[in-house]
Amino acid sequence: MRVRRTVLPGGLRVLTEQVPATRSVSVSATVGDGSRDEHHGHFGSTHFLEHLLFKGTPSRSALDIASAFDEVGGDANAATGKEATTYYARVLGSDLPMATAVLLDMVTSAVIRPDDVELERGVILEELAMADDDPGDVADEAFATAVYGAHDLGRPIGGTPDTIRAVPREAIWEHYLGAYRSASLVVTAARAVDHDELCAMVTEAAVAGGWELDPSAAPAARRGGDSPPLEGGTGMTLTRPTEHSTLILGGRGLEAASANRFTLSVLNSVLGGGMSSRLFQEVREKRGLAYSVYSFASSHTDAGLFGLSAGCAPEQVATVAAVMAEQWDRMAQDGITERELLRAIGQLCGSLVLGLDDVGARASRLTRAELTFGELWSVEDSLESLRAVTAEEVRVLAGELLARPRSLVVVGPDESDLAADLLYGLS
Amino acid sequence: MRVRRTVLPGGLRVLTEQVPATRSVSVSATVGDGSRDEHHGHFGSTHFLEHLLFKGTPSRSALDIASAFDEVGGDANAATGKEATTYYARVLGSDLPMATAVLLDMVTSAVIRPDDVELERGVILEELAMADDDPGDVADEAFATAVYGAHDLGRPIGGTPDTIRAVPREAIWEHYLGAYRSASLVVTAARAVDHDELCAMVTEAAVAGGWELDPSAAPAARRGGDSPPLEGGTGMTLTRPTEHSTLILGGRGLEAASANRFTLSVLNSVLGGGMSSRLFQEVREKRGLAYSVYSFASSHTDAGLFGLSAGCAPEQVATVAAVMAEQWDRMAQDGITERELLRAIGQLCGSLVLGLDDVGARASRLTRAELTFGELWSVEDSLESLRAVTAEEVRVLAGELLARPRSLVVVGPDESDLAADLLYGLS
Repeated sequence: MRVRRTVLPGGLRVLTEQVPATRSVSVSATVGDGSRDEHHGHFGSTHFLEHLLFKGTPSRSALDIASAFDEVGGDANAATGKEATTYYARVLGSDLPMATAVLLDMVTSAVIRPDDVELERGVILEELAMADDDPGDVADEAFATAVYGAHDLGRPIGGTPDTIRAVPREAIWEHYLGAYRSASLVVTAARAVDHDELCAMVTEAAVAGGWELDPSAAPAARRGGDSPPLEGGTGMTLTRPTEHSTLILGGRGLEAASANRFTLSVLNSVLGGGMSSRLFQEVREKRGLAYSVYSFASSHTDAGLFGLSAGCAPEQVATVAAVMAEQWDRMAQDGITERELLRAIGQLCGSLVLGLDDVGARASRLTRAELTFGELWSVEDSLESLRAVTAEEVRVLAGELLARPRSLVVVGPDESDLAADLLYGLS
Repeated sequence: MRVRRTVLPGGLRVLTEQVPATRSVSVSATVGDGSRDEHHGHFGSTHFLEHLLFKGTPSRSALDIASAFDEVGGDANAATGKEATTYYARVLGSDLPMATAVLLDMVTSAVIRPDDVELERGVILEELAMADDDPGDVADEAFATAVYGAHDLGRPIGGTPDTIRAVPREAIWEHYLGAYRSASLVVTAARAVDHDELCAMVTEAAVAGGWELDPSAAPAARRGGDSPPLEGGTGMTLTRPTEHSTLILGGRGLEAASANRFTLSVLNSVLGGGMSSRLFQEVREKRGLAYSVYSFASSHTDAGLFGLSAGCAPEQVATVAAVMAEQWDRMAQDGITERELLRAIGQLCGSLVLGLDDVGARASRLTRAELTFGELWSVEDSLESLRAVTAEEVRVLAGELLARPRSLVVVGPDESDLAADLLYGLS
């Protein structure tokens, strides 16, 4: 297994990891453009583009695109993030030329017809309504908004019904022309792939799509380090007519490439990373208060989130929030035991190795290395870094995170400003 | 790759499929006992047991069980179905002895303490509340109830809040003793596994768990063919304060081992199996009425479901239901084109082969072959059967399904009996 990286003319990057004796391949085309890159008047256009690229090019109708993947049993889909938008497919190795040609055609040559924009506006509004009916989705988006405040990272990825209704076709088109360029495109593939053959396919498809590939062009620089300012903690109560309540307590975590990221992984594992974690044991096993309870860390180039999440009966929200806060406090004060440290390291190392068998994981690891980390951290280096984490480092980091402003999001039937009241009580 | 099957003493079955050059293994222990096997007074006990088996044995506490999998980075979980309950883990091959020992300890030696029953009752009620806040889950359960009516297959898998509150510890305990026996247990493992070694591990663990393995015992017979009677179609409207509505139109499909199952797969693929399917094209691409729209087929030993599903704005439910019904009618009258047939066969064959790379798929295929089909249908045989399907067979089957009573489920803000009214109009 070997990772190869080539910068093609136009600054177009190709990264591959060939795995012997595999027959399927995951391939993705990603532009380093996400919801945080939208400007006023363009809000929602990133996610809109994710839909519109499937609607056709001069040489392929929407049905042609759909049929191309369907008729070989492939999966093709796309995802919009805060920092990138990715189009991906999983097919048999012999279908990689087709998949590469179709994905590149979509990226280079979307036509974005006005009629399609209006039709897809309705589909996206439906998608947002569906997400708004999911308390977990609502809580996740609200938590980012609570922690990042008015910063670009605080906006919901998919836009809001208002921005989707408002954004004109011309703004979407401008956003497309500005963001979908060879220098910001990263193509990755893993498993049954030959690097040189993929480079040739990508070049051919990009040229066929009308891109002029300047031989001297460099890839777009990685996103700069303008770390968003720390906002004060926010209590957000979103009243929804649900039977159970969802809550998230947390705040700013670490940026993706932080030297402390392995320590955070261990901390997260011990606090809420599995059935043996403190949150699972205290909230579910000992008290029977929740079905779902865990902690999480997510990260972007220059900032990250750290949170504790649970779903529980509405009348138990205060109790669960108090147990969460208590467990976080205890970790900051007393640290973790050697046994917990070893279990967490075992968990993280084991799941890292097991995860390599996951069919899409390798290709997305390459994309994230290129766009978010700025370098590829090998599995061996990651394992070594995890094994070097100490219990004292975990204690110190838990305290540092605790010292930052905390936010609390509650989604449930409560009509009062429950989150703000509880947050006040916890601080 | 080779599938091996051994019946151990006690009628305990072990099936494996070793895949060369893999390092992880999926292992599962499944009893052929699901929600349809519950009797009055035991309702909800199947799903209750799924939770309680993680609460400990004489030699392992709940934390021991959780830690055993967590510390090696493994995934361990369980799932209750209408016909079986399965406990599974995914670990590195070197951890298979541990995973087998822990899973078998849980299956043979759960202690089911009264205190744990009461604590877990609260957790399960939380799980049900969470599912009830998910319109998709609500629609799926309601559809089974609408189609199967008062038959055992019509009950929700996880029980209801009432049955979970009511079921006494003694009923759960009786259910455990009756259902968790060597003759109804099927252990399967795939990828990095040696068949003979696994058989030895399973025997050792079963004996250690106190099971007396009678050398002459045969495996439990496959569930009998008492196919549930065809009920009249039902319109079910479940009023929920959601922004979007979920609807399912359909009825009885085919039992798992039906000779027509490959024809149904093709039918399902053309009607609603991907982005190029008729439903996706007509409902989403041409009319922009829904974000999610598809058809599905599910099956049990002696019966199955076939349905068309969508999520849309509440005011569009009637329109979407009409488009669904029209597409089904058209398929029954005019059949499908050669191009559609070829695309569907390509899709099904491709995804069958691609699916083999999925880490958990092989082990669950073995379990399903043993408990539901009664024989292992090889991938090659499946590919051949799919390629033999004709357009005429699809047309005939579409008509047969259409001739059965149809049900319609609507989950959304509507307060009137919308589903019954629409269903009346469609027939």
